[in-house]
Amino acid sequence: MTALEDALPGLLGHRDRIAPVSMREMFRGDSGRFERFTARSGGLLLDYSKNRLDADALAALVRLAEAAGVPERRAAMFGGEAINGTENRAVLHTALRAGPDAVATVSGEDVMPGIRAELDRMLAYAEAVRTGAIGGVSGGFTDVVNIGIGGSDLGPAMATRALRPYWAGPRVHFVSNVDGAHIADTLRGLEPGTTLFLVASKTFTTTETMTNAATARRWVADALGEAAVGRHFAAMSTAQKRMADFGIERARAFGFGDFVGGRYSLWSTIGLPLAIAIGADGFRALLRGANEMDRHFVDAPLGHNLPVLMALLGIWHRNVWGYAAHAVLPYDQRLDRFAAYLQQLDMESNGKRVTTDGSVVRWATGPVVFGEPGTNGQHAFYQLIHQGTDVIPTDFLVAAEGQDDLPEHHAQLLASCLAQSEALMWGKTLAEAEAELIAAGMAPEAIAKLAPHKVFPGNRPSSTLLYPRLDPAMLGQLIALYEHRVFVEGVIWNINSFDQWGVELGKQLAAGLVGAVQTGDPPEERDGSTKALIRAAAAMRAR
Amino acid sequence: MTALEDALPGLLGHRDRIAPVSMREMFRGDSGRFERFTARSGGLLLDYSKNRLDADALAALVRLAEAAGVPERRAAMFGGEAINGTENRAVLHTALRAGPDAVATVSGEDVMPGIRAELDRMLAYAEAVRTGAIGGVSGGFTDVVNIGIGGSDLGPAMATRALRPYWAGPRVHFVSNVDGAHIADTLRGLEPGTTLFLVASKTFTTTETMTNAATARRWVADALGEAAVGRHFAAMSTAQKRMADFGIERARAFGFGDFVGGRYSLWSTIGLPLAIAIGADGFRALLRGANEMDRHFVDAPLGHNLPVLMALLGIWHRNVWGYAAHAVLPYDQRLDRFAAYLQQLDMESNGKRVTTDGSVVRWATGPVVFGEPGTNGQHAFYQLIHQGTDVIPTDFLVAAEGQDDLPEHHAQLLASCLAQSEALMWGKTLAEAEAELIAAGMAPEAIAKLAPHKVFPGNRPSSTLLYPRLDPAMLGQLIALYEHRVFVEGVIWNINSFDQWGVELGKQLAAGLVGAVQTGDPPEERDGSTKALIRAAAAMRAR
Repeated sequence: MTALEDALPGLLGHRDRIAPVSMREMFRGDSGRFERFTARSGGLLLDYSKNRLDADALAALVRLAEAAGVPERRAAMFGGEAINGTENRAVLHTALRAGPDAVATVSGEDVMPGIRAELDRMLAYAEAVRTGAIGGVSGGFTDVVNIGIGGSDLGPAMATRALRPYWAGPRVHFVSNVDGAHIADTLRGLEPGTTLFLVASKTFTTTETMTNAATARRWVADALGEAAVGRHFAAMSTAQKRMADFGIERARAFGFGDFVGGRYSLWSTIGLPLAIAIGADGFRALLRGANEMDRHFVDAPLGHNLPVLMALLGIWHRNVWGYAAHAVLPYDQRLDRFAAYLQQLDMESNGKRVTTDGSVVRWATGPVVFGEPGTNGQHAFYQLIHQGTDVIPTDFLVAAEGQDDLPEHHAQLLASCLAQSEALMWGKTLAEAEAELIAAGMAPEAIAKLAPHKVFPGNRPSSTLLYPRLDPAMLGQLIALYEHRVFVEGVIWNINSFDQWGVELGKQLAAGLVGAVQTGDPPEERDGSTKALIRAAAAMRAR
Repeated sequence: MTALEDALPGLLGHRDRIAPVSMREMFRGDSGRFERFTARSGGLLLDYSKNRLDADALAALVRLAEAAGVPERRAAMFGGEAINGTENRAVLHTALRAGPDAVATVSGEDVMPGIRAELDRMLAYAEAVRTGAIGGVSGGFTDVVNIGIGGSDLGPAMATRALRPYWAGPRVHFVSNVDGAHIADTLRGLEPGTTLFLVASKTFTTTETMTNAATARRWVADALGEAAVGRHFAAMSTAQKRMADFGIERARAFGFGDFVGGRYSLWSTIGLPLAIAIGADGFRALLRGANEMDRHFVDAPLGHNLPVLMALLGIWHRNVWGYAAHAVLPYDQRLDRFAAYLQQLDMESNGKRVTTDGSVVRWATGPVVFGEPGTNGQHAFYQLIHQGTDVIPTDFLVAAEGQDDLPEHHAQLLASCLAQSEALMWGKTLAEAEAELIAAGMAPEAIAKLAPHKVFPGNRPSSTLLYPRLDPAMLGQLIALYEHRVFVEGVIWNINSFDQWGVELGKQLAAGLVGAVQTGDPPEERDGSTKALIRAAAAMRAR
């Protein structure tokens, strides 16, 4: 019996007690509700008062976190224990952003000196690229193309877009997909003599990345000659030898430790494209912000701890109320890839079906995570969040202040964000819909027909993260917040959030199909659908 | 009792009969399975054999489509009846792509002559912009900025990205979010004298679009003088007078009928930015492709009808098996916004809680739709699709042939796509995982610990859409396919897929908060959370 199973009957009791009470009533009956269900850290405010929760239910959830060993697992993670059990690895992405006095030990060795030295090298290189001190055969780099996928792409790509007001220096592009369209469309119009490629792969064997890197290498060599390749490539990997074999010069090969998971590697030298975009100071501010959240996560009492609270809401919604999806809706256009980033962070970490000891879970684990920036989503899928048959718990993110000297835009943006959580919570009854239509002068018969469609059930949960402005430090805080949220959920689900065995089978099967796809002649032992699709594709190409 | 409720006991019986049989066994026992569960139209192949379905269950689903009146509702839609009952409107986006002999009647009037005339005007204008025959005060347009949101943005933006190999002429940009970051980042570096703005809004009152249009107008007027505004703006709307009031010249104001819903308006003059990007011939090819799918939808028997089959699979998964989400995974980087487009199409159309007659539904309606291009998603959220606790039915889309002369990239892309559906279906048993680890020389104790994590339950459903290549006509077919799929599901759920009352409340509440957000002084009658957030944001700004 796990702590979760132990707690579940009690939590279901809280749910049944709360279920008949609407959030309208909760707010009407308690003028202190906002303060009671708000937590703060480093300028960031989490308002979780618009969830179907009361103090007793929250206390039960906090007890669950304790019973599940969240404090102990947290200490084990920060202490460098091999909490990634199936890969026998420590999980120390937090060391990458630790303060100047930090010590982080893996197997008895302090890894901090190595981390600091590699960070300094990487940032010095980023600055040299930015300022033009290091350039290509035709002069300072105008364009930087990061080639990586998954953890070697989503983090830097998302953060680079998020921090556009801090850009200076060369343009930064990201190529991830093995689809030739991606690199072809990116290289079109670029000048080989002033383009730098960054090849990012934890293992330096990722098929997509190596295929794209080979195409980029050919593009450089064809245009500038083989001798120019060295000046136009740098790389980030844990595999020093493989980088050298590719032809990456030692001075342009940046490492990181195997205690850094791919989806947690933004903070390592994988962050090089971001550092080129926003500079060393910006990158260090990002790390400082993340470190601030780390310290909050370690120090704050569980009931005031942002990542813990968000994780407990996740458990509450997923395991107690049975909700299958979770929406993340940043009212910040520059966070347009934040949900895609969180899809990896959350769904790859917690989309698991066995516990740390290998037994099949008897409870739901990670939900589907999705989102688009607001206000765009309001004109797209919010219809379902308001009036669909499933309840979708939602995180809203919004800055108090814009960065573009267009205050009338920002007032509308912020008002729209607040109005959405209000609408989800408050809803509109049939009587209210009818009253509005009467006031608009509609005939009774038409009202009877239309009003049911204008009813909003309301009582739908959301949380709001409010922050002063989206600067590098705040972005660091936000990402670290979600990282730790995912960690805490994983502890309560008793799963290993740091492996990803579920990506292996598809890779394995694909390797055996590449040749067959090229010839149109599938291996006999594969299933009838796969074989027929290979033949159908070949027939389509032959036409 | 609806047709769905009538059919449900029988369908649940089919599910229970099929449930003990794995898809591995289904394929082993039936060499004709692929052909039996494949349908084709206009070069497009739908393989739905990797779903937990047999001939009897499919026959029962087809009977449901008949009993629910799909053929009659389809005829009513194409016949111009006011099937959007709550708004008393016909639904005739299909008329926008109808062939040269088509007649489409709304309230006794043939709307085709008007549609053709407006399309010709729009395409002539697009060609003139493309070729430079029409330009700005400093010459031919180098950049076109479409300002619109939701249906006036997602369709053209998605399709423009999808058809990049067909681009010529000016660069085309899309601004949608009211967040000032969006327009500020887009305008940075553009030349006012050669930039054209397209203001797209069905009603020409959409707050976001009007706010962005006002900012764009100021940008033009500040740089070029008020007199230049006319030459630098065009607009697309059903509201002729409001376009004129904004200062849009009649020759640059393009209309469409109110029988075109926003999320179905790509085919109307809303497609202008796409037409500028790919030209009149490309746009007409897109319309022809969509029309080909329309004719297939109208003519093909239900059991061989692609949109009907995909809709029936949707019902099967949502209402019979109880799956809450649906993934759309195009192995085509240029379709990177296809899932976002479908989120609007599907979730706004079918995220409904009352039937056409206003009673609350007693069954689940639209699922959450999400996706990213493959292979990227493989390195992000696929972990959960393979090994998570919820089953996520998936659509894979892939072209037989790439368009970029990088055949080794495309072979990997196609092999990866096929391998994913194979892996989801086939899975990996504990015995298979153990055998692999034994073969790799792992010690028994380590195998016992690791093997459970390497198990894939398999038996997870997916469908594959295979097409020769992503050209304008094929994109038209694909979009129309999903449009009709959504329509058929809506018919079976007995909901109005063409209204969107669920977007109203948030807009209404936001309008009352804009002033309060600016002053930091919230209206007394709002809830405690909304008021406190307004005050907190003001306090953050004051710092």
